[in-house]
Amino acid sequence: MVAADSRNAPIRQRSLRTHNLGLVLRHVAASARPVSRADVAAATGLTKATVSTLVDELLAGSLLTEVDPAPRTKAGRPAIGLRLAAQGPAGLGLEVNVDYLAACVVDLTGQVRHRDLRTGDYRGSDPAAVLHEVAEIARTAIEVAEGVGLTVAGTTLAVPGLVAGGIVRLAPNLDWHNVDVRALLGKRLPHQRLEVENEANLAALGELHALPDDDRASFLYISGEIGVGSGIVLDGELFRGARGFGGELGHVTIRPDGPHCRCGSRGCLEAYANQDALLRNAGEPSVARLVAVARAGAHAALMVLEEAGSAIGVAAADVVNLLDVETVVLGGIYAPLAPWLSEPVAREISERALATAWAPVTVRASVLGDTATVVGAAGSVIRAIRDAPATWLEFEGAVA
Amino acid sequence: MVAADSRNAPIRQRSLRTHNLGLVLRHVAASARPVSRADVAAATGLTKATVSTLVDELLAGSLLTEVDPAPRTKAGRPAIGLRLAAQGPAGLGLEVNVDYLAACVVDLTGQVRHRDLRTGDYRGSDPAAVLHEVAEIARTAIEVAEGVGLTVAGTTLAVPGLVAGGIVRLAPNLDWHNVDVRALLGKRLPHQRLEVENEANLAALGELHALPDDDRASFLYISGEIGVGSGIVLDGELFRGARGFGGELGHVTIRPDGPHCRCGSRGCLEAYANQDALLRNAGEPSVARLVAVARAGAHAALMVLEEAGSAIGVAAADVVNLLDVETVVLGGIYAPLAPWLSEPVAREISERALATAWAPVTVRASVLGDTATVVGAAGSVIRAIRDAPATWLEFEGAVA
Repeated sequence: MVAADSRNAPIRQRSLRTHNLGLVLRHVAASARPVSRADVAAATGLTKATVSTLVDELLAGSLLTEVDPAPRTKAGRPAIGLRLAAQGPAGLGLEVNVDYLAACVVDLTGQVRHRDLRTGDYRGSDPAAVLHEVAEIARTAIEVAEGVGLTVAGTTLAVPGLVAGGIVRLAPNLDWHNVDVRALLGKRLPHQRLEVENEANLAALGELHALPDDDRASFLYISGEIGVGSGIVLDGELFRGARGFGGELGHVTIRPDGPHCRCGSRGCLEAYANQDALLRNAGEPSVARLVAVARAGAHAALMVLEEAGSAIGVAAADVVNLLDVETVVLGGIYAPLAPWLSEPVAREISERALATAWAPVTVRASVLGDTATVVGAAGSVIRAIRDAPATWLEFEGAVA
Repeated sequence: MVAADSRNAPIRQRSLRTHNLGLVLRHVAASARPVSRADVAAATGLTKATVSTLVDELLAGSLLTEVDPAPRTKAGRPAIGLRLAAQGPAGLGLEVNVDYLAACVVDLTGQVRHRDLRTGDYRGSDPAAVLHEVAEIARTAIEVAEGVGLTVAGTTLAVPGLVAGGIVRLAPNLDWHNVDVRALLGKRLPHQRLEVENEANLAALGELHALPDDDRASFLYISGEIGVGSGIVLDGELFRGARGFGGELGHVTIRPDGPHCRCGSRGCLEAYANQDALLRNAGEPSVARLVAVARAGAHAALMVLEEAGSAIGVAAADVVNLLDVETVVLGGIYAPLAPWLSEPVAREISERALATAWAPVTVRASVLGDTATVVGAAGSVIRAIRDAPATWLEFEGAVA
């Protein structure tokens, strides 16, 4: 990939090939129907000979597949169509959360081919024991994938906390501190590529890739769970923060002297609007029950949601003032509660953000709902292949 | 420049030249002493013949200049050295602020060659009359530049407000609304390239380019004036917000039900810690006077600065939680007040930002002090030439 950080390097033959392989793959991926080699040449500006060479490489690496041509009315031999391979590499997404573990397999076309969800209680859990359980779920997922002709190319694990370089620095609600996931889980997986990432970041990526036009989208994805986090997408790219610790919307200050938070500070959004605060204040045992009583118009529940929505809106307005995002996406438990949260969130943004007269902000529920994180985790593996197919081809060549 | 948004385009001969011209120019710019053509070839990986052709173009366009070789002890003819031209293109920076107008000329090497500051009262001012005055200051600056052999290549105007596409949408403290600066000022300037930008963004750029290693810096520059703004630099690039309206730190909420702000909302940082609030609360007539009484240890002044620093720190902690910046820079009037503001700002960040144990944050005063904005404005013109010299060469060729 020829990206911004390559600007101080000369362009050579090898990086041209790498760049153009990605160009061809993404052109095929972007098309709703099979495209011919000639279509690719016309759309990319590459010569037909170059396109043929690149396509052959992508076919050999199981990234593209050929399909029978559609009957044509014009004279001449119809062209063979190309599309993304549904039997090639796949991504494995895994998730550890406070009250469940999950797995998901996504193929190169973005289809979910397997999902697994196991509820449990992981507050104050032993990381080694939990990751042992995760490895078993992963093994099952890999077997299912191989059974349908897929090759798991890599794994991404989602955790609710601060992550850097494969280490979970802090996951407050799991009570995990400095857990080396790569060391504990990596050796239990049959392949080498394991990424570990914050759950809200992966949910935001899942949301991004579910959008029809994901190249230019800028949004704040708010993940409401027992922890409150966010994923920030700027101009079609996930922004992780300067050192990978960004997006901690749950610890934005609502009132400097507000209630104590599990992080040790006071007045954080999480202390006002996480799952525990919502259920405790409403006196309901579950989110499903809270949705039901809100739908029935129970006054106490509506008041609690109004107050939580207002707190979420104050924090979201801060993000709009700072980053000027176009959209605020309510995810996690906020997705089913969006009918009651959206209005106070939008109202606070409209009152508090300076530029909304020229740059309006949309507030909406997540399109993926509660599977956003694990689908986003699997999708991030696929995305890496689509962005840099040469890396996958070299890896395949090395192990073949 | 081959940047991230070119990834879906093929690389052709023309863009190779554009890319490599920038590569050569930036290599010379990054060196503290003159470099030879052979040095450039060795450092960039380009052939000597290619480097010679590119250097000839840059010399012809007055972007580089040749200097006599230093005496060498080794045998052989010493190589001619190259450095940035100090007699070539220059950038003109202009600034409209609430209590002054300013101008600044910077040459390609980054040296300030001319500065002009005129105090006044521009609250509730007539945009046309003010921009007429700005045009006169600009004319003087251009004459001075031409007198020392420089060619003003473009102008950037700084304003304290929301700017998009040359239009000042809102400058609350000037009371400007939808002012088309390009229409009012552009025709009074002798060249076509006029950019208009938020003052805090330009101050942040000035700060960035004053750093020895500006490629990877991530910081929040806080501009304390009658308005409070900020410029957000992420990974060596100014982040303007998804639609250009980001960085409005002055309107981040400190307390949802706090004092009324000029923007129409309540509890904004600006209402707690702008110049007016500081002077009013301390009962002092000027920032210079406030600095003097604080230095003398006056209790009331120290209390006011402690409270303002705490409010600035709450807002800065939000930015650290969201963006994980490494450094918070106190600029504008906050620079001379930094001895009293830094400690409460750092304390709030340390208490409220989740990841400071792994990603510590430095709080410091701006290195450029109160000239950061207008120097940054002029420097942004120079930076554009350094980033894309081919554009300047084509422009020069067109008008020659």
